[in-house]
Amino acid sequence: METLLTNPAFRTYALCCAILGVKMLASAVYTGTRRQKVGGFINPEDAKTFGQSGVKALPEEAPEVARALRIQRNDLENIPLFFAIGLIYVLSGASPFGAAILCGLFTLARVVHTAMYARGIQPARAICFAVGTTCTLVMIFRIVMNVL
Amino acid sequence: METLLTNPAFRTYALCCAILGVKMLASAVYTGTRRQKVGGFINPEDAKTFGQSGVKALPEEAPEVARALRIQRNDLENIPLFFAIGLIYVLSGASPFGAAILCGLFTLARVVHTAMYARGIQPARAICFAVGTTCTLVMIFRIVMNVL
Amino acid sequence: METLLTNPAFRTYALCCAILGVKMLASAVYTGTRRQKVGGFINPEDAKTFGQSGVKALPEEAPEVARALRIQRNDLENIPLFFAIGLIYVLSGASPFGAAILCGLFTLARVVHTAMYARGIQPARAICFAVGTTCTLVMIFRIVMNVL
Repeated sequence: METLLTNPAFRTYALCCAILGVKMLASAVYTGTRRQKVGGFINPEDAKTFGQSGVKALPEEAPEVARALRIQRNDLENIPLFFAIGLIYVLSGASPFGAAILCGLFTLARVVHTAMYARGIQPARAICFAVGTTCTLVMIFRIVMNVL
Repeated sequence: METLLTNPAFRTYALCCAILGVKMLASAVYTGTRRQKVGGFINPEDAKTFGQSGVKALPEEAPEVARALRIQRNDLENIPLFFAIGLIYVLSGASPFGAAILCGLFTLARVVHTAMYARGIQPARAICFAVGTTCTLVMIFRIVMNVL
Repeated sequence: METLLTNPAFRTYALCCAILGVKMLASAVYTGTRRQKVGGFINPEDAKTFGQSGVKALPEEAPEVARALRIQRNDLENIPLFFAIGLIYVLSGASPFGAAILCGLFTLARVVHTAMYARGIQPARAICFAVGTTCTLVMIFRIVMNVL
């Protein structure tokens, strides 16, 4: 199966997934740093192990942590869907140009989406969401056309 | 790799992923419309940009929005797993008939699950969840049998 | 495409996905049993259908249920990413040995992570998270090296 990497559309898809994977892991680290910053933990064992002495578990997440978790949640609603749809798209005979545009634009939109969400900038965040969703919908449309 | 579409089991899988992708994006839009309806936003920048003048950010989601978010969350616990397990199943030599039954039934169950959850109808929602999970478990069982 | 199962790296990946799939579904069942145990439901229709008579819907999840949901959420942030990255990795010419180490270690780390989270044991949980994330990062690094 080494020959999959000879498919330029698959190479583009693979690179985009690698970038999105690093972005997702970076978002998890970002949430962790927010939690350290506010010094609050939901799990008592986390407060005991990672918090300063005397810190107790919080009943709910601090606002900054909750925002970081919403960034991750929005990713979860969009990126795993791209992993599946993008793969089917490139394995169904996507052109290298089409894959570069659709996978590349999706990846760019999601990276900028995170930056806009962390800084609370609207409507830039909504535009990034719309661009990513449009890329996914176009790929879905191409898949359905190819299958039927 | 264009030849993957000549595999009828893969075609069925691709079509089911397309339907589930549209369903997931529709659920995100549904959550957005619930948020507009109740006129409440968690992010201050959203309230400022998309809310009516004078609307402030809410401390927590309104009940209708929270229900819509639980629909999306339940999807996230089930559909990305299907994306992976379904793909491995069809790429491991699934029969066209087996793929049509298992992928088709899973997709139907998840679409009806959303409709039942949005309307608050039980035990129909639980039955849909059980049907989808059973399809996934049967595919996992077939994968393990094929690998070992 | 039956020949994919002749690729030992893909067989390892397939088996790991099967194990992780069962683990995710088991975590969903675990959350359900916690909810039955505390006798509290968020959805009114669930309280009516599955709760004891006279049980009302709760305004928010009980602590034990919330912990079970955090276990599932942490899985969602990590396992679907592995589904995608692991597949690209094994389809890009991973050695059987490399796939066995990286996919096997990731799977083991995530299973133990769940057990540690359910029992509230730190820093064992954090170590499991770090091991899983490191496996994912190494696979991403290998993918980028192969593509460029």
